[in-house]
Amino acid sequence: MSSSTPVITYFQLDFEGRAGAIYLLLSDAGVAYRRVDVPRSDWPTLQKQLIANDASPNGTLPIMELDGRTYVHQLPILRVLVRHLGKYGGNDEDEAYEIDSFADLVADYHSAWSRAHWSDDDSIKTYYRDESRPRLLAGIDRFLARRKGGPYLLGDTPSYADFMLLAVLLDDKPPALEGYPHLKAFSEAMRQRPGIVRYLTTRPAE
Amino acid sequence: MSSSTPVITYFQLDFEGRAGAIYLLLSDAGVAYRRVDVPRSDWPTLQKQLIANDASPNGTLPIMELDGRTYVHQLPILRVLVRHLGKYGGNDEDEAYEIDSFADLVADYHSAWSRAHWSDDDSIKTYYRDESRPRLLAGIDRFLARRKGGPYLLGDTPSYADFMLLAVLLDDKPPALEGYPHLKAFSEAMRQRPGIVRYLTTRPAE
Repeated sequence: MSSSTPVITYFQLDFEGRAGAIYLLLSDAGVAYRRVDVPRSDWPTLQKQLIANDASPNGTLPIMELDGRTYVHQLPILRVLVRHLGKYGGNDEDEAYEIDSFADLVADYHSAWSRAHWSDDDSIKTYYRDESRPRLLAGIDRFLARRKGGPYLLGDTPSYADFMLLAVLLDDKPPALEGYPHLKAFSEAMRQRPGIVRYLTTRPAE
Repeated sequence: MSSSTPVITYFQLDFEGRAGAIYLLLSDAGVAYRRVDVPRSDWPTLQKQLIANDASPNGTLPIMELDGRTYVHQLPILRVLVRHLGKYGGNDEDEAYEIDSFADLVADYHSAWSRAHWSDDDSIKTYYRDESRPRLLAGIDRFLARRKGGPYLLGDTPSYADFMLLAVLLDDKPPALEGYPHLKAFSEAMRQRPGIVRYLTTRPAE
């Protein structure tokens, strides 16, 4: 990691959202970072600035500034950090594929949670609770079960996709994990990691 | 690339969908592949089989079989092929980030198109046509404009994200690109590539 401090700009929210996995990964790695939490009222002006100065060409958050460069989108930012830190990215082509595929499934979970969270329509919230969430948690549990030893996707070391999963579980409040033994073991192991404990006890959202 | 033929299993559709970018990339690379186009009526049975035999742990398509292994999810499959072929993945860390970030934006375009395509709700279709699509096309056009020389994201060689973009443009019928000069140049350049010409003149969807 370079000596400069990553600066993460995201919305001021009382949940993790699309930047949560970035905060969690940096906290786990013991890397100091700075948060710029943008109030919703500032967003229209900031978005125009980000597009005008080419910081975020399509005007989305989160963005990360690092070593004088700006990076956009959650997953690409995570993968930039993996390359900078030299960890959380797997050790070979096979592990790189496993992480990619797990990240895709976790992103589906995030999208489904997010749609239900922001919806005013009770039928969407009910469908999420009774259909989407059980289906996604079962798929994630099966995915975690494929590697021996656990508790993380690749065994005893988390990947960047594991931080994505923890962020969604936190936002989901978390769901009851009794029927999902591998997810339960995952969640418990994650919450015992020193950097994660530190994050969870100091995050602004609490 | 190994000597075995990739087998792509996806739905029988009259558009590209989540597998289109895979077909396009393989066609551009001149790699022979086999398609298994699954009729919707076969899907409930096949999905149970895929989960039971651990081919697709969360029961989604597309899947790719290659060298006796099964791979799931569009983006991870594309990235497996990039590693196998040794191209379409960029030449350094900076290009890897650019492709990641572009792929994320193109995936947003695909999701927005897909939601409008499958919806029975006219207000969703109208919102897509009048709001989401112009915003996404403008963002993609700005993204393409950042690299000199074009016409592809990284200049004169397409990346896997470029095939994702072409697949969505095809599904979108394609949208009028008059206000988006870099997208227009991209689309024209892509459609002149020999492997793409071959694909477009022989694909089952036509």
